[in-house]
Amino acid sequence: MVLPKKDSTTATLLVSCSDRPGLVAALSQLLFALGLNILDSDQHTDSSAEKFFQRIRFDLAVRDSGSVIDEATLLGAIREVADRHEMEWDLRLDRDVPRMAIFVSKTDHCLYDLLLRHRSGELHCDIPLIISNHPDLEPIAEQFGIDYRVYPITKDTKTAQEQLEIELLREYRIDLVVMARYMQILSDQMIEAFPKRIINIHHSFLPAFQGGRPYHQAYSRGVKRIGATAHYATLDLDEGPIIEQDVQRVSHRDTPKDLVRKGRDVERTVLSRAVAWHLDGRVLVYDNKTVVFD
Amino acid sequence: MVLPKKDSTTATLLVSCSDRPGLVAALSQLLFALGLNILDSDQHTDSSAEKFFQRIRFDLAVRDSGSVIDEATLLGAIREVADRHEMEWDLRLDRDVPRMAIFVSKTDHCLYDLLLRHRSGELHCDIPLIISNHPDLEPIAEQFGIDYRVYPITKDTKTAQEQLEIELLREYRIDLVVMARYMQILSDQMIEAFPKRIINIHHSFLPAFQGGRPYHQAYSRGVKRIGATAHYATLDLDEGPIIEQDVQRVSHRDTPKDLVRKGRDVERTVLSRAVAWHLDGRVLVYDNKTVVFD
Amino acid sequence: MVLPKKDSTTATLLVSCSDRPGLVAALSQLLFALGLNILDSDQHTDSSAEKFFQRIRFDLAVRDSGSVIDEATLLGAIREVADRHEMEWDLRLDRDVPRMAIFVSKTDHCLYDLLLRHRSGELHCDIPLIISNHPDLEPIAEQFGIDYRVYPITKDTKTAQEQLEIELLREYRIDLVVMARYMQILSDQMIEAFPKRIINIHHSFLPAFQGGRPYHQAYSRGVKRIGATAHYATLDLDEGPIIEQDVQRVSHRDTPKDLVRKGRDVERTVLSRAVAWHLDGRVLVYDNKTVVFD
Amino acid sequence: MVLPKKDSTTATLLVSCSDRPGLVAALSQLLFALGLNILDSDQHTDSSAEKFFQRIRFDLAVRDSGSVIDEATLLGAIREVADRHEMEWDLRLDRDVPRMAIFVSKTDHCLYDLLLRHRSGELHCDIPLIISNHPDLEPIAEQFGIDYRVYPITKDTKTAQEQLEIELLREYRIDLVVMARYMQILSDQMIEAFPKRIINIHHSFLPAFQGGRPYHQAYSRGVKRIGATAHYATLDLDEGPIIEQDVQRVSHRDTPKDLVRKGRDVERTVLSRAVAWHLDGRVLVYDNKTVVFD
Repeated sequence: MVLPKKDSTTATLLVSCSDRPGLVAALSQLLFALGLNILDSDQHTDSSAEKFFQRIRFDLAVRDSGSVIDEATLLGAIREVADRHEMEWDLRLDRDVPRMAIFVSKTDHCLYDLLLRHRSGELHCDIPLIISNHPDLEPIAEQFGIDYRVYPITKDTKTAQEQLEIELLREYRIDLVVMARYMQILSDQMIEAFPKRIINIHHSFLPAFQGGRPYHQAYSRGVKRIGATAHYATLDLDEGPIIEQDVQRVSHRDTPKDLVRKGRDVERTVLSRAVAWHLDGRVLVYDNKTVVFD
Repeated sequence: MVLPKKDSTTATLLVSCSDRPGLVAALSQLLFALGLNILDSDQHTDSSAEKFFQRIRFDLAVRDSGSVIDEATLLGAIREVADRHEMEWDLRLDRDVPRMAIFVSKTDHCLYDLLLRHRSGELHCDIPLIISNHPDLEPIAEQFGIDYRVYPITKDTKTAQEQLEIELLREYRIDLVVMARYMQILSDQMIEAFPKRIINIHHSFLPAFQGGRPYHQAYSRGVKRIGATAHYATLDLDEGPIIEQDVQRVSHRDTPKDLVRKGRDVERTVLSRAVAWHLDGRVLVYDNKTVVFD
Repeated sequence: MVLPKKDSTTATLLVSCSDRPGLVAALSQLLFALGLNILDSDQHTDSSAEKFFQRIRFDLAVRDSGSVIDEATLLGAIREVADRHEMEWDLRLDRDVPRMAIFVSKTDHCLYDLLLRHRSGELHCDIPLIISNHPDLEPIAEQFGIDYRVYPITKDTKTAQEQLEIELLREYRIDLVVMARYMQILSDQMIEAFPKRIINIHHSFLPAFQGGRPYHQAYSRGVKRIGATAHYATLDLDEGPIIEQDVQRVSHRDTPKDLVRKGRDVERTVLSRAVAWHLDGRVLVYDNKTVVFD
Repeated sequence: MVLPKKDSTTATLLVSCSDRPGLVAALSQLLFALGLNILDSDQHTDSSAEKFFQRIRFDLAVRDSGSVIDEATLLGAIREVADRHEMEWDLRLDRDVPRMAIFVSKTDHCLYDLLLRHRSGELHCDIPLIISNHPDLEPIAEQFGIDYRVYPITKDTKTAQEQLEIELLREYRIDLVVMARYMQILSDQMIEAFPKRIINIHHSFLPAFQGGRPYHQAYSRGVKRIGATAHYATLDLDEGPIIEQDVQRVSHRDTPKDLVRKGRDVERTVLSRAVAWHLDGRVLVYDNKTVVFD
């Protein structure tokens, strides 16, 4: 993997549709005819669902011309093929850097992990905004030069406050919302405003230990591994499409407090992986599941 | 770890009791006074449950005497200290090799793993008996020179057949029953006949995917890791004390059949680890959980 | 992944060549024009080496015709495209089941792992032959109905014996040789007779602990993980292209004997993975390295 | 594990000596006689080296007295038993918080990981000082309120600069030096000034890829896992006692730059684990190896 740069001439095309003959040929032929070079291509067919998925990374530089393809020409050509084969598609030009907002409460380990990875070039995005229901983590936002907005949430104010948050997210032209241990349940209006565009980290190995205080549940059940799950937020809490999961060994020596502490490592790792994959255009959603191209 | 041999003069003492001062001193003093040498000692206190646990491996050879301690003397001395401190205890002499029976149905991967590890000296036990509800795996038993008894189970015959199995297990003086993908739910009489002496492998990462066809559940939920759980069988199905768990990465490319296949590796590994630890006297049960000394 | 069957109409095409425009399009167009459907396609470009690699799984059933493509037609069409783009290529029809021979000495864990996985359908091959320098493992071969030939090796007889082995391998039409803890160093004639067709398991995490008794080296260095490496055998011992590696945690409690025992698990896992990937046509070799498509 | 607090009345005693009878009894009897309660005890005997190791965590509160034991009394009693059995020993009172200095160059991932874990209570130490040969990371030190001193190093100034560093470390009463990707080789004077008190992270799975640019070595060898090694610094570079190692999967898709990036995760994890274990008094050194009690 080579990390894309903002002056990059590379692009990623994500396609999904009903399986039928000639899809790979149609897509590669499309790009070849435009004089564009495929850098990386990965394809998957789910035989039982009869669904086809493809991810193509390609170069926008037109062969033998020295110039970059005109965006309208490219879009028109893709649209033509996509319509013919009834494809859903998503084109991401690496020079169009996605804009990510992070929601936090008081816990900072996932936030720091995202910010540090972003600074070291691992996350292909801009992070202009952090939203929280508490003021506690503002100093971190300041260190990294990111706007920090506080929207305290009570039962009564929730709907109104979230409405303000949605407006702010739009104002900042946010493409992806990451809930980095944000301890509020999002209401339907927020989820519907950013479909497949909100990633949450759940501090358990779903579907085990749904609901509150999963580490205490894990402790009292005496499990030997604890886990974390990154998933897209959907209307059904804890039921959205899973992007990534991992676990960590624990033992009888670990108190609930130790589980919380050990859980932090796996939470931040799993969340950051899921965010990076989403930003790299590796994740496709279907049937409440994900295809994650590596 | 040095594997114990049948002519070994080593022993393992497992102790659990309410926490109170002087327990470690009392136990080590006991062995020192008898002229016995501690080889390895591990101790754990659960502060919230106020429970004390210790595992001591020691040599039965009496210091400066050239001879091995008399068993009655040893038992008497332990009993005296244990009574004084209200300890539950279990003494295992390595020369007394435990006798293990394996229950199977038609699937052979866990059975083979146990038999091969046993033959290469990894499991400190004899395996005189395999019981099944199907005749399919008899040839494997024959290859390893182990008696194979078939008890077909139907709804109507279950109680009677299990009664016969219990009698057979007693006749063979079985200390440990291992359910190596035995596809029958044991009835209460069997579980009560071998309390904390039946180890089961559940083909999921409990408590996720309890009940039937867990790999199909995992597939339809779109998880990114599948797991297996080895636990003691108790009256509540899938709820017994967990001894070991592990997981394996899966992806969108895996069909339910692939999950079953990949699951086999983690099932056999997890089950064999749990069995080896039990046989090494590393596992203590309390509050439906386990202490596993390493 | 769906395991191929012998009556399968699927095929795998492996291609490598210098990178240039239009390769993906040329290959997908080729198959589309023949009326063949791509099931799975994975592609990689090594930018620094300017090399292109692709693996295409496709169906031999001709679209809308009800019949399977004629092999000569297919080969001719591939050859035409391959010649035009100076591609190296390898076509594997899943109905042509590869034939694998296993070399062993006295240790049986890798052998058993391969044979059991083969029997449960995880390895797409036939295993007609086991060769050893010792008679010890013949009973295992018998259980699985496989020919077992013993060629004792001494310094003086090595060249002659290996010559006989090569002849035998040819007689059995062997496609792949797997050294499953075969404790002899192959001479150049053997390696040259089966280029990129001999897989060896080295019982260390190469390039650490090259040479003899790696577990004892690991013990005296006090490492915290031991590993194993599966690689193609080349003229430079321990220097062939690596297919797979993995490690296992060890601690100060482990004696050299324990390391050997724990190492067995990682050896057999790593070897079996490498063999399965080779048989599935997932491995391409270049610059003494491998591309392993997943 | 419960993290020790500065007002804690707990202590850890680490003991090593030649193996002989009665050591466990002598130590537990010692504490019992003083009215002190053992919280946790772990013991190991290396039979081949005939060495005995024990770690005892105990409470300084004297039974039935309501007060904490007098330090001189405790030391005297330990000294008496230790002299009798020729034990090396180390007593750590949790109220005496160790003082740690971190050496860095320009890379910040290990530094951040240590500082964030420290702030969340995972590392039992104070961190009053960061030393660097470059000014780059000073802003991070400021954010965390830690003194940052720059000592530029050239071939000619090295000895003199290190002498100043040693003086500064003494002035700050530093107990542990952590080299968090400090890109200078320490000279002998520094290592001898802090024997077994300097922890280094080596960005490879030692002993593979010793020396410079290990990720480039790993890339050109085509390995499938990269690793990191935390060890005590000794006069022989890369040869000190290993405290912890881990690896991460890589593939043909990873460029040397990707390996560097992926390596950061395993480097910081491995280093932080090693530092936490050292600070918890879990690590004993002998024969250029470590015992790490868990």
